[in-house]
Amino acid sequence: MGKIQNREIHLKTYPEGTPQESDFATVDAPLPEPQAGELLVRNQYFSLDPYMRARMTGQETYVPPYTLDAPLDGPCVGYVEMSRSEHIKEGEYVAGGKGWREAFVTSPEQVERIQPAEGVPLQAFLGILGTTGFTAYTGLFHIGQLTGEETVFVSAGAGAVGSAACQIARLKGCRVAASTSSDEKARWLREDAGVNAAINYNNEQRLVDALNRECPEGVDLYFDNVGGRTLEAAIQNMNTYGRLVLCGMISQYNARRPPRAPANLMLAIVKRLRMQGFIVHDHMDLHPQFSAEMNSWISQNQITWQETVVEGIEQAPAAFIRLFTGEKTGKMLVRIAS
Amino acid sequence: MGKIQNREIHLKTYPEGTPQESDFATVDAPLPEPQAGELLVRNQYFSLDPYMRARMTGQETYVPPYTLDAPLDGPCVGYVEMSRSEHIKEGEYVAGGKGWREAFVTSPEQVERIQPAEGVPLQAFLGILGTTGFTAYTGLFHIGQLTGEETVFVSAGAGAVGSAACQIARLKGCRVAASTSSDEKARWLREDAGVNAAINYNNEQRLVDALNRECPEGVDLYFDNVGGRTLEAAIQNMNTYGRLVLCGMISQYNARRPPRAPANLMLAIVKRLRMQGFIVHDHMDLHPQFSAEMNSWISQNQITWQETVVEGIEQAPAAFIRLFTGEKTGKMLVRIAS
Repeated sequence: MGKIQNREIHLKTYPEGTPQESDFATVDAPLPEPQAGELLVRNQYFSLDPYMRARMTGQETYVPPYTLDAPLDGPCVGYVEMSRSEHIKEGEYVAGGKGWREAFVTSPEQVERIQPAEGVPLQAFLGILGTTGFTAYTGLFHIGQLTGEETVFVSAGAGAVGSAACQIARLKGCRVAASTSSDEKARWLREDAGVNAAINYNNEQRLVDALNRECPEGVDLYFDNVGGRTLEAAIQNMNTYGRLVLCGMISQYNARRPPRAPANLMLAIVKRLRMQGFIVHDHMDLHPQFSAEMNSWISQNQITWQETVVEGIEQAPAAFIRLFTGEKTGKMLVRIAS
Repeated sequence: MGKIQNREIHLKTYPEGTPQESDFATVDAPLPEPQAGELLVRNQYFSLDPYMRARMTGQETYVPPYTLDAPLDGPCVGYVEMSRSEHIKEGEYVAGGKGWREAFVTSPEQVERIQPAEGVPLQAFLGILGTTGFTAYTGLFHIGQLTGEETVFVSAGAGAVGSAACQIARLKGCRVAASTSSDEKARWLREDAGVNAAINYNNEQRLVDALNRECPEGVDLYFDNVGGRTLEAAIQNMNTYGRLVLCGMISQYNARRPPRAPANLMLAIVKRLRMQGFIVHDHMDLHPQFSAEMNSWISQNQITWQETVVEGIEQAPAAFIRLFTGEKTGKMLVRIAS
């Protein structure tokens, strides 16, 4: 058995509906010493992301499901505690795909060396500079073909991807409306993220009317993180030749039955709409361009972000569940005390 | 008052659900003599098309609704009975937009001169050589970006647009599956239209399973004329990066309440699907290319079509209603005895 202390989170059962803490277990899993050519990485942060719920199912989809009684995985950043590789030295920082655990042994090819610029925290590589920001960027420009001076609607606008999408669209000169779940988040969207209109859907009788009120000239691009009724309200308010970027459908991840679907899809013909789903990993060719633009925005203080950090790996299951209850702000991160 | 005999069909009330004959009236409407520069056109055929149902509503949409107590309109072909224009002579054939009536007076700019090739009947300009064929062509190639050797699924495959789409895709080398409402139509699709698989949905417990059985390697392009459950079944069977061409949703035109919507739209993200609605009149730049290719296919007997012809303008309302009950074959036409 290994000698290096490590704990990791296992999935014990595939959740029915919203996950419960009892679906997870924190497990001692000591690691072996790295072999020649390998690294020992000690995670500092890993992220908890809504799409992971889609992998917590025994059903075959196009995303490989998580295996029961084995460590979950996902994005992480950490430092190299031991190196037996010539390529990466001890003390360097890396990003990888071995989240939900305290440490891991890896070959250097499985991780990416990262060098945070001054004033940029390490965990930004899990968020605004990582998959989160890259997803917003790819969805707006590559899938949505966004041009300036359009009206953009972003659902879950205060979420990690949503708030990046809102601000990138604003930086490109667009008018931006966002939906969110509380007055506090709506205030942040208006005052800190700089959106033109923020809708707290819990204050609205009918989202379709609220969107019409806030975007009286219609929506040119809808960035969908939610699906369901919000998608339906967006379709109703789209302009002719509008584009709908299907990024996530958090309203549906925990559904036990087929969820409410947009009953007004016939408008996609009348309005000549284009709806397109995407997964960001298909578009790595855009990453250098994204990285350059995002680093520039950050260095000029043109973009902001929020995060919710919990301390200690044993908090990860409860924090994951909070993704679906709205009780968090921005990117959800687990910090491992070092 | 005019002296030239003419009858026309008026809409008396906006139908609730499936139209009734009592929603329509056949009205005597004698025409004035054509003025200098004008033509008198006597219709020989006009077409009855499902999309017209969407205009039989008082609700504002992006398509102008029909006016009550005024003649309906739509595609027609006829001959010039009187000409006071230098541009078109008496006895020439024209296509226009003044269907649902026996005759009309027009300026030459409002109609298009047509010259049927040998063996091509006049009414083909309402169907395979007209908007019907052009819709199938535009949807497959411009919206759907069809390439050869793909698997194509067409709903309402024995319908006017559907059967054109099936055959064009076959001519381009694709494998084609079609859904339809009877064994007789399924037989025609296989034996005459040459599709690889035809599904009579009335014989199937679950369309999603039937489609999986007939397209075990999945669907690359879905040409949707139906919407609703058929769209849902198609989404379930799409391949990654599949395209869904939203052409019509006949299942929904008569719906009094929001119809069943596809509850599996989340798969659009997982499979990176693109769904796009279109209206053929936006794409007239493609018409010369379509016309050349379609005339070539027809002259080489590579494409076939079906039509249902009723005789006499007073039959038009009942024939229109048959569009929604499946009791017709191919393009629905009204012939005016001359």
